[in-house]
Amino acid sequence: MSPREDTVLSTMQDVPLLISRILTHGSTVHGTSQVTTWTGEGEPHRRSFAEIGARAAQLAHALREELGVADADRVATLAWNNAEHVEAYFAIPSMGAVLHTLNLRLPAEQLVWIVNHADDKVVIVNGSLLPLLAPLLPKLPAIEHIVVTGPGDRSLLDGARPRVHEYEELIADRPTAYDWPELDERQAAAMCYTSGTTGDPKGVVYSHRSIYLHSMQVNMTQSMGLTDQDTSLVVVPQFHVNAWGLPHATFMTGVNLLMPDRFLQPAPLAEMIESERPTHAAAVPTIWQGLLAELTAKPRDVSSLTQVTIGGSACPPSLMEAFDKLGMRVCHAWGMTETSPLGTVARPPAHAVGTEEEFAYRLTQGRFPAGVEARLSGPGGERLPWDGESAGELEVRGNWIAGAYYNGPGAEPLRPADKFSEDGWLKTGDVGTISPEGFLTLTDRAKDVIKSGGEWISSVDLENALMSHPDVAEAAVVAVPDEKWGERPLATVVLKEGSTADFETLRAFLADEGHIARWQLPERWTIIESVPKTSVGKFDKKVLRKKYAEGELDVTKL
Amino acid sequence: MSPREDTVLSTMQDVPLLISRILTHGSTVHGTSQVTTWTGEGEPHRRSFAEIGARAAQLAHALREELGVADADRVATLAWNNAEHVEAYFAIPSMGAVLHTLNLRLPAEQLVWIVNHADDKVVIVNGSLLPLLAPLLPKLPAIEHIVVTGPGDRSLLDGARPRVHEYEELIADRPTAYDWPELDERQAAAMCYTSGTTGDPKGVVYSHRSIYLHSMQVNMTQSMGLTDQDTSLVVVPQFHVNAWGLPHATFMTGVNLLMPDRFLQPAPLAEMIESERPTHAAAVPTIWQGLLAELTAKPRDVSSLTQVTIGGSACPPSLMEAFDKLGMRVCHAWGMTETSPLGTVARPPAHAVGTEEEFAYRLTQGRFPAGVEARLSGPGGERLPWDGESAGELEVRGNWIAGAYYNGPGAEPLRPADKFSEDGWLKTGDVGTISPEGFLTLTDRAKDVIKSGGEWISSVDLENALMSHPDVAEAAVVAVPDEKWGERPLATVVLKEGSTADFETLRAFLADEGHIARWQLPERWTIIESVPKTSVGKFDKKVLRKKYAEGELDVTKL
Repeated sequence: MSPREDTVLSTMQDVPLLISRILTHGSTVHGTSQVTTWTGEGEPHRRSFAEIGARAAQLAHALREELGVADADRVATLAWNNAEHVEAYFAIPSMGAVLHTLNLRLPAEQLVWIVNHADDKVVIVNGSLLPLLAPLLPKLPAIEHIVVTGPGDRSLLDGARPRVHEYEELIADRPTAYDWPELDERQAAAMCYTSGTTGDPKGVVYSHRSIYLHSMQVNMTQSMGLTDQDTSLVVVPQFHVNAWGLPHATFMTGVNLLMPDRFLQPAPLAEMIESERPTHAAAVPTIWQGLLAELTAKPRDVSSLTQVTIGGSACPPSLMEAFDKLGMRVCHAWGMTETSPLGTVARPPAHAVGTEEEFAYRLTQGRFPAGVEARLSGPGGERLPWDGESAGELEVRGNWIAGAYYNGPGAEPLRPADKFSEDGWLKTGDVGTISPEGFLTLTDRAKDVIKSGGEWISSVDLENALMSHPDVAEAAVVAVPDEKWGERPLATVVLKEGSTADFETLRAFLADEGHIARWQLPERWTIIESVPKTSVGKFDKKVLRKKYAEGELDVTKL
Repeated sequence: MSPREDTVLSTMQDVPLLISRILTHGSTVHGTSQVTTWTGEGEPHRRSFAEIGARAAQLAHALREELGVADADRVATLAWNNAEHVEAYFAIPSMGAVLHTLNLRLPAEQLVWIVNHADDKVVIVNGSLLPLLAPLLPKLPAIEHIVVTGPGDRSLLDGARPRVHEYEELIADRPTAYDWPELDERQAAAMCYTSGTTGDPKGVVYSHRSIYLHSMQVNMTQSMGLTDQDTSLVVVPQFHVNAWGLPHATFMTGVNLLMPDRFLQPAPLAEMIESERPTHAAAVPTIWQGLLAELTAKPRDVSSLTQVTIGGSACPPSLMEAFDKLGMRVCHAWGMTETSPLGTVARPPAHAVGTEEEFAYRLTQGRFPAGVEARLSGPGGERLPWDGESAGELEVRGNWIAGAYYNGPGAEPLRPADKFSEDGWLKTGDVGTISPEGFLTLTDRAKDVIKSGGEWISSVDLENALMSHPDVAEAAVVAVPDEKWGERPLATVVLKEGSTADFETLRAFLADEGHIARWQLPERWTIIESVPKTSVGKFDKKVLRKKYAEGELDVTKL
């Protein structure tokens, strides 16, 4: 359809969706809401949204007038979750610059690569992280200014080339209002690099539009669903996909923020829950595992905390049940750096609430919200139905989904064909099913799926079935090349001590008890001493594939 | 700030915010949610969101292929709230045409004016409304097609010039999918005329963008806050500001819709609440007054209904208390055709919940959500503070706020200076205060405020103070011209039978008991028999001003 001369023009106003608008709203209408930062000892530090607004304006003045930060300049943060980091979140994009949150857990060489690739001009750093930053400075030639917040040994910066500023001195006595510019809502606002296990890190550049719309979604009833009566304990780091959007979203609705700073160990987390009484918390499963052990060893009053958002990786059912018993209801969410991150949220559908089905829904990755479109792509690139059974690679589309990767200043973004479809959808690299009502269940990473004769075999299904055998301690299944089928599964098994099970028995077990289809059963088997693991404890299948390729495994073919 | 050559480009996808996306989401992810239409007798009619999606596609095919509806053509609806009206809501904008909802309560000549001004090509009409439409047809030359839904006497259309179609026959056997076009999100989607008391009606043209963003807001926790566990009884008509956005918003989150069709009387409303058990309802106060009387006369089980959104005009405190006692919590909202309509929602702030203050917050018009910016403009056009005391005209800005009025096909929209500020904000015509935490309290319409020597005097404050005197039955205060001050208040008083109060006494009472400032006290007084009222029961101050101007009132000057 082409527009006509006599077309009807909308009479609505057109106001850019900007982060400065979220800040202005939060610091006025919700000016009394608070950001509380844990300090380890003594009273936590409390700052109202109104104060955050005033100090964000002061920071923007300082960055512009004192440090010469211009439109589109990158200002990095190397910081824990705290009030100053929230101020940076709002000040930097609102003035037209680009916030670059640095992942302080990355190996030093990756951090150097990322800072140089982003061409960061300024770094705002917590004093406690100077031991991490100081040794890298000789390799970071573009950095002109370092702004230090909070306690920490400044002498580490003696002799550093960039100019060093104290955050509080820098912003003091500057105007507490800033005439935020009317930017293009599609302008870059913030960036975050994925720490991919292969190749260089990839930069995702969020726009004002993407962050604004994502923030609205976070506040919708079927996402996190928080109000100004809530306090959210944000354990997920601010350098990890914008702390899942919580700092932005909470300024839209006045939800109070409880920030743990560097106190992420189970004991201080339990202590801050008991004393500050948050109603909501967000973190990856490993944090919750630790907290559960802590609470078992030393019970506290954690009754305020009724809703827990878990993402980053799947939450084990046992952990979910344990938290249910503590009165903390776990809500699964799925996303990635490329999806801002909320891609799904596992709120059970109305018909399942209060029934036996409910728990099964909570174990899925969740349901797609309005604004995230999803499709499954099969082994041959064909579209698969939402039938809860057909497994394919998940592809997603939407305004808070990346359509490319950053390629340096002024350059057109990169659109590698293995990450983005020709029509612009993100290929997530995750394999799973979607039910008719839009619930996603992930089974594999695409790279771990076995592509056998135009069909996919789930390595995770085979592993789970194998590990349910009483003689099996651990098992990993990887794809190995096969002349006839392209790829076939190799089963690598760790037997329990004293076990006598043989491969024939295990194979029969898979077919009978594991309900694995005959054509999916592995013919290649090997016993190993333990499954190699990555630094975060996941099976490291790369190592197994390499060992197989180099003939280091003693493989039996059935 | 000007963009630089080495600027950072966002890497996010850019997906137009379109009504077709809401439809696709609702009819798949929430395909089992239902639209239930009351039929007066027998079983209500039930249709799933998936069926609505399929039938909306069929309707779009019929409109395009059979009726020749082109991009930007106006398709009107003259209809009650029912499933077919929901289908039209989605089909017409999604295909690129413009939905024009006709207010069936308007006088015939206004309806004719509006249809001709909008240049409607097709009308979809409920059979029950043919007695209203048929006599107007000779005056509606642009209408080419009439599509009739539901029961009603078709013979009324015998000899009519436009072609007449049966809705069900027209859509039957057409494809249940439609390749919805990727429109510009700023394109016109729907239009609605305000029934202003003076001058011609004014058309507001909503865009896909404005409706999409407004729908997200309706689903945010601090607006209506509904989930797929809710059923919303939508009493507010679909021809009244898109039924406050509910049909669009509910398709985003799977909230079930209960549609009363033409059964808006207290008895059937009570019956449908008892049998269908909605959890939420939305309507203007007069509907609730009637329902309260019905429930008092004949109690029913209405325990499902726990949340009631009231807008359109202020809810009397007594009505709010009465509904509280029934377990239905009333939530005030303020808006107008020009604001899509949700401008404020009166959810008490966290610190007031559970305290004595809470009720006072619920009586305000409510708080501005993120996305609605507000300011107060004083008598001289100066900006007034948000101090809860300074009263000024409310001006608002945002993506779902009108910035102009429709001026006919192809024409630039109208921006009359009394309705829109030079910098594009909507002048609402409402006068009130805003508290520091963003709660709006309206006191007057701007046209009823008395502009005295550069200051404003609230006619409503004077009236409320007067009516609290034991001898006063009713009182209306209007502005009358004054040589020295520009305008001054005239107090028109209806005394209770047998009362002997004189003007001096009343004036002293205003100053003492009514806490009215000395300079605001009226010097002109008159006794009248009753306050003239409009058809909806509001004080008709136009009549009083006219009587005064024509010397028909016996005025005493103190």
